[in-house]
Amino acid sequence: MKITKCVIIGSCGHINYALQDIRQYPELTVCGIATADPVDVCSDLNVQITEEFNCRWFDDFRVMLDQLKPDVAIIATRFDLNGPVSLECLKRGINCFTEKSIAHNFEILEELRNTAEQNDALIIGMHGMRYEPEFYAAYQAVKNGLIGKPMLFTGQKSYKFGNDRPDFYRQRSTYGGTILWVAVHAIDWACWIMGEINDISAHHSNAHNFDYGDCEATAVMSFSFANGAMGTINADFYQPQQSKLHGGDQLRIAGNKGIIEVGNKQAFITTHEQPLTELPLEPGEFFADFCRKINNEGKCRLSMQETFRVNEIALQARASADSHSPVNTQVHSFS
Amino acid sequence: MKITKCVIIGSCGHINYALQDIRQYPELTVCGIATADPVDVCSDLNVQITEEFNCRWFDDFRVMLDQLKPDVAIIATRFDLNGPVSLECLKRGINCFTEKSIAHNFEILEELRNTAEQNDALIIGMHGMRYEPEFYAAYQAVKNGLIGKPMLFTGQKSYKFGNDRPDFYRQRSTYGGTILWVAVHAIDWACWIMGEINDISAHHSNAHNFDYGDCEATAVMSFSFANGAMGTINADFYQPQQSKLHGGDQLRIAGNKGIIEVGNKQAFITTHEQPLTELPLEPGEFFADFCRKINNEGKCRLSMQETFRVNEIALQARASADSHSPVNTQVHSFS
Repeated sequence: MKITKCVIIGSCGHINYALQDIRQYPELTVCGIATADPVDVCSDLNVQITEEFNCRWFDDFRVMLDQLKPDVAIIATRFDLNGPVSLECLKRGINCFTEKSIAHNFEILEELRNTAEQNDALIIGMHGMRYEPEFYAAYQAVKNGLIGKPMLFTGQKSYKFGNDRPDFYRQRSTYGGTILWVAVHAIDWACWIMGEINDISAHHSNAHNFDYGDCEATAVMSFSFANGAMGTINADFYQPQQSKLHGGDQLRIAGNKGIIEVGNKQAFITTHEQPLTELPLEPGEFFADFCRKINNEGKCRLSMQETFRVNEIALQARASADSHSPVNTQVHSFS
Repeated sequence: MKITKCVIIGSCGHINYALQDIRQYPELTVCGIATADPVDVCSDLNVQITEEFNCRWFDDFRVMLDQLKPDVAIIATRFDLNGPVSLECLKRGINCFTEKSIAHNFEILEELRNTAEQNDALIIGMHGMRYEPEFYAAYQAVKNGLIGKPMLFTGQKSYKFGNDRPDFYRQRSTYGGTILWVAVHAIDWACWIMGEINDISAHHSNAHNFDYGDCEATAVMSFSFANGAMGTINADFYQPQQSKLHGGDQLRIAGNKGIIEVGNKQAFITTHEQPLTELPLEPGEFFADFCRKINNEGKCRLSMQETFRVNEIALQARASADSHSPVNTQVHSFS
């Protein structure tokens, strides 16, 4: 793999997707770390990373970008800042591996799209579930036609709320909403495995949300796909503390020749000819694949265009839930 | 139990809900059987029942009603006829235990409601899943507050299509639609366990439906409840032939103190304090309870008003799917 110089901006969220691959490949280096948060929500982690990778700490991420001129920025700041920080990187032609949802509103999404294009830089969101082996097994089984025509999609994301959610979850302006943070994973599965979503009707609610302000404890949506298939997604923060799993992630895809069911780190297929059978799992390397892609050395399971489209659909779903009315996702909310 | 004279009209669908209780109680008698179907789709079954219960066969169910003057008619004809046949019974003051959905359109639903009231007769739909022990266990756990405020409902119905679906499934006019026949079960769970549904957005499709005409192979809906909770339902005919279950019935209810999960004839609860625990199951007698209710000897888990409301919501959901637009279920579609 080509030498790829990385910096880290913020250490909320899923930067481990990057760190675990960086630890495997000496060609991938971390040369700097900074935060964009006015209030740094993960300062302990920042210190750890600085020590582990023996990299420089910067008080201002812009100074870091200009001094170090990295190939890739790994961005996981307070959620609302991931878009603006990514924009600063893209303006400098720096590729971005950014916590999803990369944009909290349509305007910043459009700015990211235009800026990436103008500066010949790539940005993808940390939709790391495409690299969880059981979800990739489901994807491959569907694409290989093992269940015939996939016609019905059902996705579930359920998180433990816990006692240590940062305070910024309390405000829509900083958190973005549970559709953008939680349900977006299942929106990504739907777009990835099934195809283009046509229209969405969504609900969400901040009732009984452990007194966490705007943060929605529940969200649901139903939608159709362009090819005549359809689906539902439900997401919540109600996974019980005593549940053995952090996430109650579940995916079911029904086709005219069989069904696929994913959960508990396993994927199963049942067809008209074949009883319940576990699908073989194979590991993947999300961040390393992203670096291979920007270096023209290989492919990544997630493209920039898909990142934008999934984000756009999540924003549309949130708008549907806010307005209590369905949205036609083919009517783009920006030019 | 008081002596209760029953007749059977048609033997499609779930008349076993009635027969299994009739076999237990000598006070419950079957004195006549008839069909309302222009083409009788279950003639073998009719012969069996006539022999088992040593009852009279009538070519015309109206003649049977007038001659035998039964207390209860057990009605399971070609689906579109269940409403009109029930209406003939109600006009004669005969209580009806009718296959769901009892009405295929708003007009017959309204006629049934008015006629039942005028003639002081009861009609309930065969929503027998209220008497399946694992679903009743879920109901009781929620009502007893074991998961706190129930805020998120997810229901799944998945049937094997098989090779012997009657031809009348091919036409909407006779079949009624998969929302009325399959998804309605989950609508019933939602109304029963969670409460009043406020609005629904639904989709259904007859694509890849084993060449069965109008019959929808898939249906989905999302909705909110009056109390701020929300939910989704997915239904399909794609349960694989090799699946061990006829129905992939699944129910999940998430609350702020825990979740309940129902499937495979079991119900489980997990809370913030309690790891995954199976709920105790207790049997019930649907038809016997209905007879107790009409005889003022006891209660039934399903009321006539609930039968009407669930049917109305299913019709509204079907209208939403047909029109590709959401429906406000508080705007009643008839006076």
